[in-house]
Amino acid sequence: MTPKPLIRKANYYETDQMGIIHHSNYIRWFEEARVDFMEQAGFGYEKAVQAGLDIALVGLSCEYRSMVRFGDTVEIKVYITELKNARMSVSYEIKDVKTGDLRTTGETKHCFFDSKKKRPVPLKKVLPELYELFESMKNKD
Amino acid sequence: MTPKPLIRKANYYETDQMGIIHHSNYIRWFEEARVDFMEQAGFGYEKAVQAGLDIALVGLSCEYRSMVRFGDTVEIKVYITELKNARMSVSYEIKDVKTGDLRTTGETKHCFFDSKKKRPVPLKKVLPELYELFESMKNKD
Amino acid sequence: MTPKPLIRKANYYETDQMGIIHHSNYIRWFEEARVDFMEQAGFGYEKAVQAGLDIALVGLSCEYRSMVRFGDTVEIKVYITELKNARMSVSYEIKDVKTGDLRTTGETKHCFFDSKKKRPVPLKKVLPELYELFESMKNKD
Amino acid sequence: MTPKPLIRKANYYETDQMGIIHHSNYIRWFEEARVDFMEQAGFGYEKAVQAGLDIALVGLSCEYRSMVRFGDTVEIKVYITELKNARMSVSYEIKDVKTGDLRTTGETKHCFFDSKKKRPVPLKKVLPELYELFESMKNKD
Repeated sequence: MTPKPLIRKANYYETDQMGIIHHSNYIRWFEEARVDFMEQAGFGYEKAVQAGLDIALVGLSCEYRSMVRFGDTVEIKVYITELKNARMSVSYEIKDVKTGDLRTTGETKHCFFDSKKKRPVPLKKVLPELYELFESMKNKD
Repeated sequence: MTPKPLIRKANYYETDQMGIIHHSNYIRWFEEARVDFMEQAGFGYEKAVQAGLDIALVGLSCEYRSMVRFGDTVEIKVYITELKNARMSVSYEIKDVKTGDLRTTGETKHCFFDSKKKRPVPLKKVLPELYELFESMKNKD
Repeated sequence: MTPKPLIRKANYYETDQMGIIHHSNYIRWFEEARVDFMEQAGFGYEKAVQAGLDIALVGLSCEYRSMVRFGDTVEIKVYITELKNARMSVSYEIKDVKTGDLRTTGETKHCFFDSKKKRPVPLKKVLPELYELFESMKNKD
Repeated sequence: MTPKPLIRKANYYETDQMGIIHHSNYIRWFEEARVDFMEQAGFGYEKAVQAGLDIALVGLSCEYRSMVRFGDTVEIKVYITELKNARMSVSYEIKDVKTGDLRTTGETKHCFFDSKKKRPVPLKKVLPELYELFESMKNKD
């Protein structure tokens, strides 16, 4: 299953005085795209919560290639790049929809947590269905 | 008891492409000043939470007189302007520290809520100590 | 011409520790809806900029009726409620798409500015085309 | 010259529905600390702007070790960890002031830009004074 990229417009309130989207906002866009990705995969946030699972963010990185400006429309692609017992890496690619220019790439690292016991859990064991889903969505390139 | 105004610098990430602080941020500054005001009054957020009290925000208004820019230092004065059984109005005045120029004024309206029962409660009855404190801090002008 | 309301999902990063969308974000949603409204009207931000016009925000108010939560989809209706020579008032209504429940109402007040001379200008005189457009979109209720 | 860490309180509006500071905000705190660091060094943002210099952000990373909550006070240490002709790396360490616990570490990568010509410039050549300053502040560990 390959989810569609998230299409999104850059908002005025996301600009800074350089006339570009402030770098902190891309981190939020990654989250938007991740949430959308999970929903498309049929395993939205609520479902994870109900299952007692936290997909905690433990690290991230971002490279700024070129700038997004107010009014630009971008597409955000999400890839699962690594899937281990208790953790996962997700990559992102933000491109301008009109020009196709690459704007930003990034990665977030996540840990699977039991939301009650507050400790890492092996996803394969606690939610094999989600593990299989992630496995099937892993980037093959 | 008259709390001191909150002194605060305008951050780069709070600017927009007009080169000024985006208007939504003042709403956040009001909150910062309100939290600080409560703490100075000896009744911080945690204390309200422990007492099972929510001070829910039900409305706000803001007038923009002149602009704050990145690097400016402002002072934010907080006044309790109305205190009723189950609600309260709080006013704000943001001035530039260097020039004394008025930047923004605003008001937030709050409702006292029982955080468990999820319904309005008369503050005077459930937390008379806090009611008296607010009463003593009410703006006399 | 009656623009369509903006449909929008509430983002995770817009929540606060009460588990609801933080009140400051609705102010940003108003802006998103206003920008969208102008675009639908065929007079987007860039066009105003090119014409040397600033539609400065000079005041706002917001009433919080019920709460939006992460994952909720809302629709935001925009109305021009007042149109004067050098200023305009715009009203907003945010409803939950699923239930139709009213979440938030608000108003923003704007001033027409010559972006070079940095002073108020009569819209009717400097951009009669936009004035007529706004006039035709004014809420008749 | 060794600048003092920035001391900062976590704001309510920076929390998310997990009851912790949303991860995107640390990126903004890094910026606050960087701005403060430059000011303490006697070379604030305005001075760089006047000299026609942009210190563009081209990449960042962040590791989340433990969580900051509303009301916590943190200290943010800033180190210059790499200084090349046209670029620089800056590291950050966020600790809880009360407990000393490490909360977050991160790094930002920057490029020196001529703000008019919009292209990378060797800092040593265009602003030797700032280059020397950065050199003297470079982390020796």
